[in-house]
Amino acid sequence: MAPLDRNTHGVFAIAPTPFDEEGAIDFDSLSRLVDFYGDAGVTGLTLLGQMGEAPKLSHEESVRIVQHVLKRTDLPIVVGVSAPGYAAMRALTVDVMSAGAGGVMIAPPNTLRTDDQIVSYYEGAANAIGADVPFVIQDYPLSFSVVMSPAVIARIANAAPGCVMLKHEDWPGLEKISALRQLEADGAMPRLSILCGNGGLFLDFETERGADGAMTGYCVPELLVDVVRHTAAGDRDAAHDVFDAHLPLLRYEQQPGIGLAVRKYVMKRRGILTSDTQRKPGPVLSARARTEVDYLLSRLTRKDSRVTLTA
Amino acid sequence: MAPLDRNTHGVFAIAPTPFDEEGAIDFDSLSRLVDFYGDAGVTGLTLLGQMGEAPKLSHEESVRIVQHVLKRTDLPIVVGVSAPGYAAMRALTVDVMSAGAGGVMIAPPNTLRTDDQIVSYYEGAANAIGADVPFVIQDYPLSFSVVMSPAVIARIANAAPGCVMLKHEDWPGLEKISALRQLEADGAMPRLSILCGNGGLFLDFETERGADGAMTGYCVPELLVDVVRHTAAGDRDAAHDVFDAHLPLLRYEQQPGIGLAVRKYVMKRRGILTSDTQRKPGPVLSARARTEVDYLLSRLTRKDSRVTLTA
Amino acid sequence: MAPLDRNTHGVFAIAPTPFDEEGAIDFDSLSRLVDFYGDAGVTGLTLLGQMGEAPKLSHEESVRIVQHVLKRTDLPIVVGVSAPGYAAMRALTVDVMSAGAGGVMIAPPNTLRTDDQIVSYYEGAANAIGADVPFVIQDYPLSFSVVMSPAVIARIANAAPGCVMLKHEDWPGLEKISALRQLEADGAMPRLSILCGNGGLFLDFETERGADGAMTGYCVPELLVDVVRHTAAGDRDAAHDVFDAHLPLLRYEQQPGIGLAVRKYVMKRRGILTSDTQRKPGPVLSARARTEVDYLLSRLTRKDSRVTLTA
Amino acid sequence: MAPLDRNTHGVFAIAPTPFDEEGAIDFDSLSRLVDFYGDAGVTGLTLLGQMGEAPKLSHEESVRIVQHVLKRTDLPIVVGVSAPGYAAMRALTVDVMSAGAGGVMIAPPNTLRTDDQIVSYYEGAANAIGADVPFVIQDYPLSFSVVMSPAVIARIANAAPGCVMLKHEDWPGLEKISALRQLEADGAMPRLSILCGNGGLFLDFETERGADGAMTGYCVPELLVDVVRHTAAGDRDAAHDVFDAHLPLLRYEQQPGIGLAVRKYVMKRRGILTSDTQRKPGPVLSARARTEVDYLLSRLTRKDSRVTLTA
Repeated sequence: MAPLDRNTHGVFAIAPTPFDEEGAIDFDSLSRLVDFYGDAGVTGLTLLGQMGEAPKLSHEESVRIVQHVLKRTDLPIVVGVSAPGYAAMRALTVDVMSAGAGGVMIAPPNTLRTDDQIVSYYEGAANAIGADVPFVIQDYPLSFSVVMSPAVIARIANAAPGCVMLKHEDWPGLEKISALRQLEADGAMPRLSILCGNGGLFLDFETERGADGAMTGYCVPELLVDVVRHTAAGDRDAAHDVFDAHLPLLRYEQQPGIGLAVRKYVMKRRGILTSDTQRKPGPVLSARARTEVDYLLSRLTRKDSRVTLTA
Repeated sequence: MAPLDRNTHGVFAIAPTPFDEEGAIDFDSLSRLVDFYGDAGVTGLTLLGQMGEAPKLSHEESVRIVQHVLKRTDLPIVVGVSAPGYAAMRALTVDVMSAGAGGVMIAPPNTLRTDDQIVSYYEGAANAIGADVPFVIQDYPLSFSVVMSPAVIARIANAAPGCVMLKHEDWPGLEKISALRQLEADGAMPRLSILCGNGGLFLDFETERGADGAMTGYCVPELLVDVVRHTAAGDRDAAHDVFDAHLPLLRYEQQPGIGLAVRKYVMKRRGILTSDTQRKPGPVLSARARTEVDYLLSRLTRKDSRVTLTA
Repeated sequence: MAPLDRNTHGVFAIAPTPFDEEGAIDFDSLSRLVDFYGDAGVTGLTLLGQMGEAPKLSHEESVRIVQHVLKRTDLPIVVGVSAPGYAAMRALTVDVMSAGAGGVMIAPPNTLRTDDQIVSYYEGAANAIGADVPFVIQDYPLSFSVVMSPAVIARIANAAPGCVMLKHEDWPGLEKISALRQLEADGAMPRLSILCGNGGLFLDFETERGADGAMTGYCVPELLVDVVRHTAAGDRDAAHDVFDAHLPLLRYEQQPGIGLAVRKYVMKRRGILTSDTQRKPGPVLSARARTEVDYLLSRLTRKDSRVTLTA
Repeated sequence: MAPLDRNTHGVFAIAPTPFDEEGAIDFDSLSRLVDFYGDAGVTGLTLLGQMGEAPKLSHEESVRIVQHVLKRTDLPIVVGVSAPGYAAMRALTVDVMSAGAGGVMIAPPNTLRTDDQIVSYYEGAANAIGADVPFVIQDYPLSFSVVMSPAVIARIANAAPGCVMLKHEDWPGLEKISALRQLEADGAMPRLSILCGNGGLFLDFETERGADGAMTGYCVPELLVDVVRHTAAGDRDAAHDVFDAHLPLLRYEQQPGIGLAVRKYVMKRRGILTSDTQRKPGPVLSARARTEVDYLLSRLTRKDSRVTLTA
């Protein structure tokens, strides 16, 4: 349960929140999920992100989930604490850090536009949560409508010592990684751990560009671990070979709106989640879409023997 | 504490949430505020809207505010219950309706685009809160990026018996009022009470078009009451005369982003709020802006003797 | 026909483009419009802006309009040259500057988000049109979804010597004027002429904050001239008195979407335009809305004897 | 040069517009491009779309490009005629249809929101271009911010006899194809040809759902032809096998903003385009990105022998 730092690398799995069919939190599935991630070789977990349906959880539920996971694993945990007000952000941060989390993740509100607005928001947030709490910038323009240039990220990193990691999911984003690493090399900003999202859709090149790994929730996290490992070992072709084998399913899961439904469905088929229910309002995977995922899984299992289906 | 119905009319004041300088809820100011609204002649209150800083309140704080107000006044109360998930929406609705609220208000999430998406969302929400709870559609495209045509509002009203009121703040919006009243006259939808927002900027014509009144938070609610009364009495010139006298200040308060800061500052100067603090992150009125409001107030007090300043 | 410079002040009227009922350009009305603006005391004209329906004009029509106006008046002319590509922007700039325009106005494409993107776009545009062409930044976030901080405007002004004027219509925008004037006083950027848009809705305070005047198209430009003159003369109360008398109509004209229809209708009633037609697709003012404008005009003519109606 | 109809199927290649390094249209490359598409087995071409840099072309250039292509090939041609005003849309439509185009494509302006607004816009457009001109609805929410439900598309198809094709690139979009085919089966709307965009990222399943083919610009159109052919022949595995082999490159090309730069670069390497220049302002592919594309091409050429590189 080490805290995040500027050199954290590997794969942080974005954990979905398991619900039963009535929408109550399913802690048994959550336990299985945590064990599964550990077996898959991830280096950490991220709880209460968008893909964890965090906005649909109460403060108490959020804290219970974090406590449950922390009891189950020694992996470092990042917790999403985004909130409309700094007071709520601080309250959740205090609760989860005292429970043993390794850091928190903060997304920008969708009203921010200019560089100054974005920097000012993160300065205020860093001040609210306390200088000693390691935090992650969540940079996801497609979802939040907030675009952060490398210069803005550098300004935040320079202003807030607690800022140690970037969850990178700009799109397109490869040049951004190169630009940030150049700014670091030039001494213009401190090093950040860069973990990439976007469902892993560009992970094969992101790691080559200098990213430290992935922070995303692809339903076969073993693949993410492989790509990071092969790239770190300098085995480019091996990284791409395994990546390409998974790309058809990974691409299917990366559809906005229904991505989480695909993810939960596969995790149900893999025997991890008892139900693939999302809290309402939320999308439901059509019968036809399920057969498409089934087809992709049948093709994948012929290429990757670790993907076994029990349901 | 009568429930909302399809013929509710008059002025529902959008109440700001008073905080002390540390950001704690100031219940003494809240009491004064409730008394002030009663004296001003409003017919109801709306709590926990955007302008009440609702997203920055915890569930417990929200319930306490509603309970406090309900103890203080017999005016009917509308409570904003918008939430990312139906479960939280239902939980808050149950709490506030059992405490005596007259109805709830629901804003659309900013991801909705098509007519079908909007209607489906409101059907789900109506189902979640229960068919017996009167609710208000909050139609505010400038803030929520969701545009509801008259046809969509008719579909919601036809599908959900609990839908009894529209908080109208489309912009431009005069034709929409006419179109809705025509749909009602044609038997295409049940009557809705229509109360108008937008800070009151078009109230002089909205009431002429068939609106039942205002639901907004202008810092001099006496003006809103006047306009509704004069129009109902058929005294068009009197309505416009009093409206025009307030328009310079009303327009200044209607600026996006800083409008609430202006409103709280005036209410502080009127002796109602002890502090004009907003919870962070939030805008702060510059010294220069305060002098501009002071100047507008000095001009207004010469035209409307009810506006007296104590601070 | 002096070129724009950093000290240009007064009122630049945004001219609508007159069409006949079939949508052809009505050059007779255009002539009357130009004469009318001169009589009203404006110091310049702006052609081919959004409110001039520029996107609906062909290149050839655009050039003909500019030539027609330049033959009719000696007032300095600003021409909107915004275009998806720099080549078209340059082509129109060359045509209108050689015809005698005083400068051009450039709006940002709505895909720009970060400070760097905005600055880079304007640097490219300035390079494309040529360093010797005076240009105006059009800063209108509500319409273009591009938000420029004072720091961004300073960067553009420092990078592009041709940048001499800001058309300011941010909203809220009063603090922005103060911030820019402070940056100039601090030596952080060269002086810009600042002319304000937003239909004039905040002109009473914008001039007090340091703006040099207005660039907008309110259907009674005499009012804009008055406000600028009274403020320059230090007569605050006179400026606000005349402004307040016009505010009810000015506010009505400032509605998004139908504002231009209101403007053209009033100009038709004032005997300037033969028709209030807009090119399709465009909004049409309802019969009810026309009676509302008529009522506002009847009230206004009692306060401002210069507003006479002939149609 | 048959006109489009409701049963058009196969692959319509979205043609990029070739420029030389100074930004002038390169008609020699355009000739090679047309020949290349014919050899690749496409059934039609689409000119002057977003990916053809249409907004950066003058009316005259647009017409010349269409004429040049029509002289070179007998393939049916769809021409993008989107414009801010109906007059310009009509003018370009008349010019290209009289030159022999098979139909035109119309994208919605980004100001449309409600179902009624969208339907009304297309009714007006259909009226402007003339009832006898076959047209394509371009449904691309990610780029245009306009979301059209199946119900809206049905309303347009019912109202406008000229509407014979949907360019489908909603995202996610598989359910939409199924919904439209169901509406047709139910007799609620006439049949539309559905050709899919999105760079082909979901073409493997889109054809299975009932799409008639692809309308997109992937730099290896032979792949698109293969997928459509295999699916039509009922050979599901073959379709997916060939699709999966191309997916790594196809995914790389599908990045927003730089996708066209990737496409032109590959077409240059394939010996089709002399230069990969885009008109300014436009993105430039970094040296690093070029090496990434080279790597993907080197992997692809081992799997698909038709992809040969000459530059």
